Amino acid sequence: MPKKFSYQQLFTFSKNIFLKMGCPLEEAETAAKSLLIADLRGVDSHGVARLSGYVRLWEVKRVNAIPAIKIIHETPSTATIDGDAGLGLVIAPYAMNVAINKAKQVGTGWVSVKNSNHFGIAGSHAMMALDNQMIGIAMTNASALVAPTFSVERMLGTNPIAVAIPAGIEPAFVADFATTTAANGKLEILQRKNAPMPSGWAQTKDGEPSTDVNTLKNGGALLPLGGDREHGSHKGYGLGSIVDIFSAVLSGANYGPWVPPFPAYIAMPENLPGEGIGHFFGAMRIDAFRKAEDFKTHMDKWIQRFRSAKTIKGEKRVFIPGDIEREMEEVRMKDGIPLLQQVVDDLNSLAVKFKVGF
Amino acid sequence: MPKKFSYQQLFTFSKNIFLKMGCPLEEAETAAKSLLIADLRGVDSHGVARLSGYVRLWEVKRVNAIPAIKIIHETPSTATIDGDAGLGLVIAPYAMNVAINKAKQVGTGWVSVKNSNHFGIAGSHAMMALDNQMIGIAMTNASALVAPTFSVERMLGTNPIAVAIPAGIEPAFVADFATTTAANGKLEILQRKNAPMPSGWAQTKDGEPSTDVNTLKNGGALLPLGGDREHGSHKGYGLGSIVDIFSAVLSGANYGPWVPPFPAYIAMPENLPGEGIGHFFGAMRIDAFRKAEDFKTHMDKWIQRFRSAKTIKGEKRVFIPGDIEREMEEVRMKDGIPLLQQVVDDLNSLAVKFKVGF
Repeated sequence: MPKKFSYQQLFTFSKNIFLKMGCPLEEAETAAKSLLIADLRGVDSHGVARLSGYVRLWEVKRVNAIPAIKIIHETPSTATIDGDAGLGLVIAPYAMNVAINKAKQVGTGWVSVKNSNHFGIAGSHAMMALDNQMIGIAMTNASALVAPTFSVERMLGTNPIAVAIPAGIEPAFVADFATTTAANGKLEILQRKNAPMPSGWAQTKDGEPSTDVNTLKNGGALLPLGGDREHGSHKGYGLGSIVDIFSAVLSGANYGPWVPPFPAYIAMPENLPGEGIGHFFGAMRIDAFRKAEDFKTHMDKWIQRFRSAKTIKGEKRVFIPGDIEREMEEVRMKDGIPLLQQVVDDLNSLAVKFKVGF
Repeated sequence: MPKKFSYQQLFTFSKNIFLKMGCPLEEAETAAKSLLIADLRGVDSHGVARLSGYVRLWEVKRVNAIPAIKIIHETPSTATIDGDAGLGLVIAPYAMNVAINKAKQVGTGWVSVKNSNHFGIAGSHAMMALDNQMIGIAMTNASALVAPTFSVERMLGTNPIAVAIPAGIEPAFVADFATTTAANGKLEILQRKNAPMPSGWAQTKDGEPSTDVNTLKNGGALLPLGGDREHGSHKGYGLGSIVDIFSAVLSGANYGPWVPPFPAYIAMPENLPGEGIGHFFGAMRIDAFRKAEDFKTHMDKWIQRFRSAKTIKGEKRVFIPGDIEREMEEVRMKDGIPLLQQVVDDLNSLAVKFKVGF
């Protein structure tokens, strides 16, 4: 049984580490909150397990703890932001707030970001729109692990998309997914168990189908959502490409195979066409389209109808996107967040290195 | 060998049929253009093969040939449009123009549409943005054929998404795809051949996997992009849901299992929560984010890099989304559009019924 830690303990520890990196207090709190929401919602690969990774990026000067984040281009409904190589965990909420403020003024707001780093889970930023009676959208590119249809080269990241939609009495609809068949985190779980990998998740370095869980380590690639051409992989490839272009070609960040890797020990790609990694955010006021109350009434009806759909044998529920993560968040906020020993050891090392209590 | 017909012949014929339905001249031309672009680009299921289907909807008074299309709600960057039960082939270009004009003013424009009908292929509307140095987005809901993950009920349409992105010297990036593993049109092709269907495309009425090409006819359902849970079907379900909500819950159209069917002989669902089917359109000026020239230079570089990716054995090219359809369009504009005898017979029947030359 993995040991459990309270949200508050992990939040305070993460905040203190960010403070030791030199982040201003408010930004350290924002970064810790962005990080911990992943643990709460069950996306364990994107939470405190990555804290030491962010520290290593800062140590090699690829993360700037005191960035001067600024708008470098704008119209009434758009902005482009230079993140000044700061933590994506801080830049993303800043950019989402710009989108929300634009939406307050003219109905919608759209923000493309360059010169950033990994921003945690996309869903947490998209969900910022919900309290403002807005639909929120968040996406990011990431370093190349995915082979487009018919390619053996890794050209795209797992490039997630999140869309959060408010409802009335029902909890919000929150879709948040990588544009690949399976996220890299799922592959890592199977690797730890040394279990076989389902077909359609990855291909070998020669582009052959594979169920060997070490395929990616051996130079293979993840596959776009769909898996192969016959099952629509060109659609997943198209989606991942749209995320890449909106996040990076619009903003001036790096794209395709040039996106900087998260692990600090991996060398940067050469001849970079842009700066840092890119994100894209959107906010749409629901009352920019119809009366907010009418929208919420029908969104409730949508959710209730889908949730009550007849299930296939052996399954108890048709889930609404976000159900599983929201229920996990309730449980973990109450009972604590389970961490693997390996992650606990990692946090203890950080505690010693930075002389921070854990 | 199917007989080939010139674009001009099919355009003129389709226009004349729409005129006989009572459409004003300009709208008849717009509708014929929206319809024929599907044939040119190789999406044969959405072109003139559907002309008689539109006529039948008009005959049962589900299509209004002289709609008063109007904006019923708006902000500087958004609008909601009531299509007055007109042809989607006419309403969609109208709505896309509203989005483009909003984008000219404030950087982006977003339009949700209710009370419409089928609009042909999403890509043709998204591509209207290209000449305006904008990114175009188009999506629509459709009558329910798709079972969400763990559902046996059909709850969503094939709900396509199209995104068109301008480049410089390279042709535009145009992704246009159903949010299912395979579009219904592909299934129909296999049905004609009585060929087996790949796994992951559809499930039986009890929710069992199936490779029987008649699965859908026998009460089964198409599967969301991903196929099953292990291969990410919850992502395809999420995408199809987002299309449904943006197109219909935002606008006041019908959603989920209540979306009216295209075939006029199928009874309308009961207790409709909205009006007609719904669409959603977006236009984003590229110079609302960065200098248009810079965007185009990097978009060219993006396209060239992806196109030159090393291929898997036996494949000659990594395609850029839109390549196949654009090349088809060039060929068919020059050599003509091949039509199955069944479609030719259908058009001949229309010619006789409406006393229009073919």
